Amino acid sequence: MAASSSKFKEENSSSGNVTRLSYDVVEWSSYSPGYHPKLIKENKPDDLTSRWLSESGRPPQHVTLQLSHPAIVTEAVFGKYCRPHACNVHKLKIMGGMNSEYLVRLAEGELKNDGCSETIALRHTLKNGPFPCLYVKIVLLDTWGQTNFSLWHVDLLGITDPSIVKGAAHRLKEFQQEEAVRLCLKHLRQNDYQEAFASLQKQAHLDLEHPLLTELHHELVQEGDYTKAELIFTRAVSDGLLDSHIKEQPLQAIWEMIEDKSCEVNSWPCARGGHQLCLDVNAQLIYLFGGWDGIQELSDFWVFNINGKQWKCLSRDTTQQGGPSPRSCHKMCLDAENQIIYVIGRYLNQDTRTSLFTITVPGDFYSYSIQTGKWEELSSDTHADGGPKLIYDHQISFNPVNKTVYLFGGRVITSYLQEGVGDDHIFSGLYAYQCLERKWVCLRPDYTKKDLLTYPDQMKPRMAHTMVLCREKQMLYIIGGQREKESLCDMWQYNISSDTTLLLTDGSNQHQPAAGYTVRATFEPSNSELYLHMGISRRETASSSEDSNSNSIWVYTTETKKWSKVTSISPSPCPRYAYQLVYDPTNNTHYLFGGNPGTPSASSLRLNDMWTMKIKRQTRENLLQKCVYTIRKQKYNELTRVDPSDALRYLQTTLAECVNHNNPAHSQEFRSLTSQLFSEVDSLPSVREIRSQLFDKISSLFPPTLSQPRADLINFIDY
Amino acid sequence: MAASSSKFKEENSSSGNVTRLSYDVVEWSSYSPGYHPKLIKENKPDDLTSRWLSESGRPPQHVTLQLSHPAIVTEAVFGKYCRPHACNVHKLKIMGGMNSEYLVRLAEGELKNDGCSETIALRHTLKNGPFPCLYVKIVLLDTWGQTNFSLWHVDLLGITDPSIVKGAAHRLKEFQQEEAVRLCLKHLRQNDYQEAFASLQKQAHLDLEHPLLTELHHELVQEGDYTKAELIFTRAVSDGLLDSHIKEQPLQAIWEMIEDKSCEVNSWPCARGGHQLCLDVNAQLIYLFGGWDGIQELSDFWVFNINGKQWKCLSRDTTQQGGPSPRSCHKMCLDAENQIIYVIGRYLNQDTRTSLFTITVPGDFYSYSIQTGKWEELSSDTHADGGPKLIYDHQISFNPVNKTVYLFGGRVITSYLQEGVGDDHIFSGLYAYQCLERKWVCLRPDYTKKDLLTYPDQMKPRMAHTMVLCREKQMLYIIGGQREKESLCDMWQYNISSDTTLLLTDGSNQHQPAAGYTVRATFEPSNSELYLHMGISRRETASSSEDSNSNSIWVYTTETKKWSKVTSISPSPCPRYAYQLVYDPTNNTHYLFGGNPGTPSASSLRLNDMWTMKIKRQTRENLLQKCVYTIRKQKYNELTRVDPSDALRYLQTTLAECVNHNNPAHSQEFRSLTSQLFSEVDSLPSVREIRSQLFDKISSLFPPTLSQPRADLINFIDY
Repeated sequence: MAASSSKFKEENSSSGNVTRLSYDVVEWSSYSPGYHPKLIKENKPDDLTSRWLSESGRPPQHVTLQLSHPAIVTEAVFGKYCRPHACNVHKLKIMGGMNSEYLVRLAEGELKNDGCSETIALRHTLKNGPFPCLYVKIVLLDTWGQTNFSLWHVDLLGITDPSIVKGAAHRLKEFQQEEAVRLCLKHLRQNDYQEAFASLQKQAHLDLEHPLLTELHHELVQEGDYTKAELIFTRAVSDGLLDSHIKEQPLQAIWEMIEDKSCEVNSWPCARGGHQLCLDVNAQLIYLFGGWDGIQELSDFWVFNINGKQWKCLSRDTTQQGGPSPRSCHKMCLDAENQIIYVIGRYLNQDTRTSLFTITVPGDFYSYSIQTGKWEELSSDTHADGGPKLIYDHQISFNPVNKTVYLFGGRVITSYLQEGVGDDHIFSGLYAYQCLERKWVCLRPDYTKKDLLTYPDQMKPRMAHTMVLCREKQMLYIIGGQREKESLCDMWQYNISSDTTLLLTDGSNQHQPAAGYTVRATFEPSNSELYLHMGISRRETASSSEDSNSNSIWVYTTETKKWSKVTSISPSPCPRYAYQLVYDPTNNTHYLFGGNPGTPSASSLRLNDMWTMKIKRQTRENLLQKCVYTIRKQKYNELTRVDPSDALRYLQTTLAECVNHNNPAHSQEFRSLTSQLFSEVDSLPSVREIRSQLFDKISSLFPPTLSQPRADLINFIDY
Repeated sequence: MAASSSKFKEENSSSGNVTRLSYDVVEWSSYSPGYHPKLIKENKPDDLTSRWLSESGRPPQHVTLQLSHPAIVTEAVFGKYCRPHACNVHKLKIMGGMNSEYLVRLAEGELKNDGCSETIALRHTLKNGPFPCLYVKIVLLDTWGQTNFSLWHVDLLGITDPSIVKGAAHRLKEFQQEEAVRLCLKHLRQNDYQEAFASLQKQAHLDLEHPLLTELHHELVQEGDYTKAELIFTRAVSDGLLDSHIKEQPLQAIWEMIEDKSCEVNSWPCARGGHQLCLDVNAQLIYLFGGWDGIQELSDFWVFNINGKQWKCLSRDTTQQGGPSPRSCHKMCLDAENQIIYVIGRYLNQDTRTSLFTITVPGDFYSYSIQTGKWEELSSDTHADGGPKLIYDHQISFNPVNKTVYLFGGRVITSYLQEGVGDDHIFSGLYAYQCLERKWVCLRPDYTKKDLLTYPDQMKPRMAHTMVLCREKQMLYIIGGQREKESLCDMWQYNISSDTTLLLTDGSNQHQPAAGYTVRATFEPSNSELYLHMGISRRETASSSEDSNSNSIWVYTTETKKWSKVTSISPSPCPRYAYQLVYDPTNNTHYLFGGNPGTPSASSLRLNDMWTMKIKRQTRENLLQKCVYTIRKQKYNELTRVDPSDALRYLQTTLAECVNHNNPAHSQEFRSLTSQLFSEVDSLPSVREIRSQLFDKISSLFPPTLSQPRADLINFIDY
């Protein structure tokens, strides 16, 4: 991120290339005497007085820069004082444009509280080319301390080549003109100024929208032919014109509990938390091992047959078969091709550790062959073999491409003796176990607090996070977790091929899950989506929505890097800690088992309920049904005004046809429509008005490029 | 301001009357757990938990209320906790409207940090009737502490009568539709969509603007007939269509120094500060008495003949004639009808007071008869006679209507003994001296700090403020001053007839002078304007403008209650303390004499320079000349594109005619126009574009109701 601006050539020395832009500070919100905004033009990292200091700590504070010539501004470089400073800006946004009164957002960003200059890339394209600016406004939103705001130095970089900039300014103007005409066209048609509409459309040579929408407007608003309108809309759906809308619809989660239907004793695993599940997609089998039942650790081993919905016990105690000892907070993963399960790590309670007198407690590592039913101890001391120390609440993933188990994080278990020595706990780094070579590789060390001061940009080792593998891209995604008392909400990507990490988000964005302690992620390969299920949220914040984050489900699209929340439309399991969740992409189903409901009055209560959760997407059929219902409802509404008995007939036949009577809400809404038969007509909006509103509503489902402008002229009217 | 909401009837119990409106809290910025925004619906002044508390102290924070039915919302009542609280809101704004996404500003206000509920009146009319709201958004901008924000209780009051509200909603829609069509019309004409423009105007039956403007557009933009355009504009000016624009133009101040042209010794008063001037308008004489010359107090008495521009000494020492002793920081006023001058108050320095052993120091009061040339001691102890104690830096005004001298403020001089007793200084209240009865009346006592806690809404006694009388309205205006270490920026109005005070502004508005210590006010009766001259500003703050407030002049229009700054267009006197300024409305001239320039290196330096200052207003002639020049300049610009030699001829004749060659700036700008003869035509905007821009510029000088919308559609385009 940091950039030394000295590598950029001075303006005028080049054209088409990115150069440093000369500017003047022309306007500001406030300043403290002696700290004039113009001081940001100079870069003096050793000079405490070479900065703009606002007169107040109340955000927003801003400064407007005017370039000496219009330019395509591509980057803003923020120089700082050589050491961290409480007045340093934390959050800011950058606006720009040709007219200082009408600026658009070029960037929103954050700066670090350190002594390094930072570069923020600016949005500098409009849909049809580069975006020119004469003014750049820097709006400061937050400081690192609770202080007044300081900007130390700002360099703007961009393209000044007059042929590029002039062309851009010309295209911007053209775009604005066209959009303005489209706004007029929408308003003219909406208000039935037909002649002016036709004349303007003819002279401006502009398409207001997709021809099907124009046709729809004619039939629906002009003619009131609802049957034709319905046909046109149906065609638009089947032509795929509404697919982008369908894709944007929030996903829905449907939970269903799997009941234990067998009458046999011991045919269902006992209640537990801190256990492990792994799924064999091809065999449609889920393996369960270990956990804590509220009193003791377990070493039983089970398999669930998805098709038969039955559990079968493979072992009551794997120790008897040379397998792992009773344990919880371990991790398990499956090499499906070779039918091998790997188990590593465990939690040791204080008592156990007190009785240990060595400094390090050895960590074991087991494999289980599904074919032979045999356990093998791969290592009795993974650390001695070059792997991690004994850890718990870590994450592992098996990568079938290179036959490697990846392991990240977890808290290192130290003996009671050592525990007393240092203050800080140790968290494990990133390790890889190459299964064929039976060899451990340390990819990232167990960075300590001190190490992280030296390498602040490293992915912090942590515990109780979540990790998933994207096999196709060979990426690991790591989200959230805990480090000492710090709740982490960041999201990282580890590129297996290049051995590099990338911070995807630091968690400060409000439109993402407040990842906390009890988060489970799964991955859908078909569209590279990541699902996140929150158990009990530890960061319950009160935002504008009243929903709790507990038990919420989110989806992250790796392509767009955006989060969205999934709506649960059925009763869902109670929020919990220490549960397990696996995902079967072949039938789009999650499986959840057990956990700790965190009931204060029954702290040893654990669960053994099992649930499936399917993610449902909007389909063309859903959308069509919904819209046809809306169209017919309006037709019915019109009929009630002129012929109530005709309306009633329509309600009972044509309208009733498209109602989903299985859905109680739909069904009730439908039944409530009869009351419209008795409304007073004169208090209602005009027929044309409601037709036009319906058209606008339908039109807004189409992509912006295919439909009339979303904005309405009347909303720009100031009074 | 405080209102108990219980006196308002419940909704539904009345119609057309103002009732309490029922609402729901539907949206908010944040809240702290346990302090949900919905709690503002309940009024529990004793309950610390019955409030909305934001989760953050970062403004703005907001809450949106949805009314159960649309209403004309007239007032918002804010209930509070029974005692002051750091989380109490200080500044806020209130928005409202029918569509929650497009709200308009209903009020901007402040709340006190006390336990009393307060009512804020809301703007609830649109130009053509009442303004309906379904949503009210309360935006919190500042708290009294540096804390998170609390709102304790909100009641909305308004009119719910459906016939009123429905009519209002209908008119609002109509207004929005019309304005939207006007925006379209402007855009269509601007971009030469003539047919669509004509068709829309015909169908919408709307006047875009005054017919003269339509004609101007035709001649200027369509025909390019600049001569006709000029004639049309000239007619618009002479028809008074631009008078409101002319009235809004900033006033200009022209300072001129009066030089001492006499060659005689002692023909000009010596340098001084803390002296007094008073003006006899009819006689065109200015009287000067006393002051401090940097070393000693003075008791000389002078008169200045405005017509002859000469000073004449009436007395070298008034004590000799039985008049006042040498003094400074006294006050003087004139009863012009009876030709009597009153003198009261004086400063006593520490040394003098140390030598006094009584608790109160008596204050004397003198009158001077201009006709007889005789002084009379009206009182040797005004306090004993029911008047003020001995004071300095007070203000007095003679009210000719009831022949009364009004006196407000000033610091009470106490003996050295008393000075040591209490911590707080005493400031004098408001007194009236009825000249015919020779009787003092105390209108407002000398409120102490303690008194003001009991009566917080009282006008604080103060020193070094300014006061002027509006004879016509029988009002005193009091501005600024000092109380202990507090610099007051408030402005009060004292109604002489009703004996009531009204706070006009508390000084928190940024668009007003930062009234400080050295402020002098004068009054222009013809249009009820108040002029304020600042000497050296003690509240120099760094705002978005770089100008200092020192030596600035402001005008306050009592009708609109608005301040605007006057531009000085000539060299002005150096900033100073302790100067005097009088105003002669008959020839619109201020006279300034002497003062203390506050030179740190010469603390006893005082001045005896004398200046006149005239306030100049824009006239129809000025405006016409300026616009004709602009129109001809554009004609010239067009000519340069087609026929440079023709252009040069035009420049030297028609254009040269309307240049004010006496003004060096105009003259220079005119000369620079020749360079346009050599510009490259292809890099210039089109002729139609520049004509259209010129038209828009001229159109914007007309009142909004007579011209096309100010807004441009293209500026609403988002990208």
